[in-house]
Amino acid sequence: MIRINNNYLLLQGSYLFAEIAKRFNEYTQKNPSKKVIKLGIGDVTEPLTPAIIKGLEQGVKDMSNIDSFKGYKSDNGYEFLIDKINHLDFKQRGVKLDNNEIFITCGAKEDTANFQELFAENIKIAITDPVYPVYIDSNVMAGRSGNFNNGRYENIVYLDCTADNNFIPEIPKEKVDLIYLCFPNNPTGQTITKSELAKWVKYARENKALILFDAAYEAFIKDDNLPHSIFEIEGAKEVAVEFRSLSKTAGFTGTRLGYTIVPKEVMIYDKNDNKHSLNKLWERRQSTKFNGVSYIIQRGACEVFTENGRKEINKVINFYLENAKIIKDGLTKINIKSSGGINSPYIWLETPNGYSSWDFFTKLLEECQVVGTPGVGFGKCGEGHFRLSAFGDRANIQEAVERLSMLKL
Amino acid sequence: MIRINNNYLLLQGSYLFAEIAKRFNEYTQKNPSKKVIKLGIGDVTEPLTPAIIKGLEQGVKDMSNIDSFKGYKSDNGYEFLIDKINHLDFKQRGVKLDNNEIFITCGAKEDTANFQELFAENIKIAITDPVYPVYIDSNVMAGRSGNFNNGRYENIVYLDCTADNNFIPEIPKEKVDLIYLCFPNNPTGQTITKSELAKWVKYARENKALILFDAAYEAFIKDDNLPHSIFEIEGAKEVAVEFRSLSKTAGFTGTRLGYTIVPKEVMIYDKNDNKHSLNKLWERRQSTKFNGVSYIIQRGACEVFTENGRKEINKVINFYLENAKIIKDGLTKINIKSSGGINSPYIWLETPNGYSSWDFFTKLLEECQVVGTPGVGFGKCGEGHFRLSAFGDRANIQEAVERLSMLKL
Repeated sequence: MIRINNNYLLLQGSYLFAEIAKRFNEYTQKNPSKKVIKLGIGDVTEPLTPAIIKGLEQGVKDMSNIDSFKGYKSDNGYEFLIDKINHLDFKQRGVKLDNNEIFITCGAKEDTANFQELFAENIKIAITDPVYPVYIDSNVMAGRSGNFNNGRYENIVYLDCTADNNFIPEIPKEKVDLIYLCFPNNPTGQTITKSELAKWVKYARENKALILFDAAYEAFIKDDNLPHSIFEIEGAKEVAVEFRSLSKTAGFTGTRLGYTIVPKEVMIYDKNDNKHSLNKLWERRQSTKFNGVSYIIQRGACEVFTENGRKEINKVINFYLENAKIIKDGLTKINIKSSGGINSPYIWLETPNGYSSWDFFTKLLEECQVVGTPGVGFGKCGEGHFRLSAFGDRANIQEAVERLSMLKL
Repeated sequence: MIRINNNYLLLQGSYLFAEIAKRFNEYTQKNPSKKVIKLGIGDVTEPLTPAIIKGLEQGVKDMSNIDSFKGYKSDNGYEFLIDKINHLDFKQRGVKLDNNEIFITCGAKEDTANFQELFAENIKIAITDPVYPVYIDSNVMAGRSGNFNNGRYENIVYLDCTADNNFIPEIPKEKVDLIYLCFPNNPTGQTITKSELAKWVKYARENKALILFDAAYEAFIKDDNLPHSIFEIEGAKEVAVEFRSLSKTAGFTGTRLGYTIVPKEVMIYDKNDNKHSLNKLWERRQSTKFNGVSYIIQRGACEVFTENGRKEINKVINFYLENAKIIKDGLTKINIKSSGGINSPYIWLETPNGYSSWDFFTKLLEECQVVGTPGVGFGKCGEGHFRLSAFGDRANIQEAVERLSMLKL
């Protein structure tokens, strides 16, 4: 008899953004004349830039001709793309990587979800609260969570991120084996300094733990002192894996491309304490379960790392950061406290008057026709908070702020 | 301490095609002047057809404009594509499906590898021998295999496919829970009739088992009596999932798009024998671990299902089938027996003079500079066999056959 993976039964409700989409659809069906502004899921709104479009066009053209046609290729990406990534994202910031430490994939969601497959079922994982739900759900599916009680899974170590600690998690007192960190953070918009991040690297080295560092939002960092990569921290190459994405960097949410860095120095241990190369293990996983990213998309992505392409995407990122400032200033005017929105496209606000996250979601949707993301959807510590994203055209952002200013508080 | 998923240590050597690539590279480095003809991995060689190129160009164009730009969308694919697939692949063959039973993904390799995640670790799986290695390796990684002894994993039920049974597996005598079938078969090129396939559906229904049916090569079926989909068999919608791919159908090996059909009727059981919808379970898996296929690629794929696009790809498929005939006839002339090569791009040959598969691989590479795939790479029953694929330009195929005819046997 075909039996279910019982771990799936431990999952809580729908995936957060599916739930938001459902409520949004219900509202718009009942109120077809109302214009709803979406600052929820954090989806980019600006089109791909001209340089990227040209690259994609070239990719399509190459596929039309027998001599330049591309079939199966290395599962881990084309050298022409990896070379450019290596140079611009890492070498230029003083991080030395070999090309075969960089794996091209369909996106950071896929990679952060899949990476846990490499680990034993009984490792102890630590995640921040609030957190991007994919980290937890993928581990629940793999049997690492235990039961769900009072808003938390019993076998997971939660690292609280609250206004009290300025949304920077504290080093756990217990021993953990795998730590998920994301900076600039989704959902809080908080960034981390080199010295704070160095503490985590030190903890990982001392405990033979591994850090999965999600840097999907690094392109929004404008402060020169903040690290873009965990590998800017000394010793991190032995204890960290980094996830990158073009989704927010270059508007690839619907185009799909990410990359994951697995340094050769990272070791992982079997039950007899023998060491194994994590890089080789991930390579084996990818060559078995993945067949590479579309050549066309890789060809287009290439232009993100040229001088011209970089200029274009920086312009778009600056535009989103201006949006963030407009939202943040608007919130300040109506006495709503927020973090983030600087070096990050996310604004993490404290709901006024003690509203619960979902009540504030409903209030915002019904009174202002603005969709945001309830903080509690990211974890228990997200209760009483709410995430707004700075993606959207300027007129919409301004209208959203205008509507927010009329909110009956 | 970060611990490895110990199941990975049970995997045998490299992934087959990585090993072939390695040996090929070693040979070409030592013999840079020799022109090697690759009939190994089964990668298409003809460029994308004009209709598909136009669709891709439109997709790129849409991404350049703020009004037609596409960001995140349903993880499971655009309706414009699913509608067309549903109509052409299923409705026209008498199979009635709802659109939300069709999931668009990056390819059949990914899907056949990922699908096993939905099942309990201790289910009994049956696979044919020889078999596409991904089915086994993904289950080994998930802990279902047991140890590897004498060329086989101890907990897996192997269904022998030999010349004696015409490469059609027999129904297992023991109870199994999950069965992988692939027709037209990779690697044997064998097809299955409706009445043979109906026996499997009957077995699955009687045993509450599930069939994972890989139909990646269905486009090569020219015999009107053969089923293209397992859902052409009565009752199959309660006990089967089907994997489709555009890789061989439309030359998408490097463009990447597949689709998986999970009928709502399929039920899966928890430990208390409660029923759960497999369709909902896969949807949950995908919404958590996947972010959809690139819009551009979906827009291009759309043209595979238009009248014009279909005409174009049929021409390419017929071209490959003519290649297959040339190879098959060439083998017959030198008294090498083979199956497949009709309704399939694969020719499965018996190695002459008792050569082992890998010895024949070396002989072919060194004497003829032709690369094929050693049968034993697909399983124990593949020993003494060898796979040639019919992808390649005509001159290369003819030259390969010419070279084969000089083989010193």
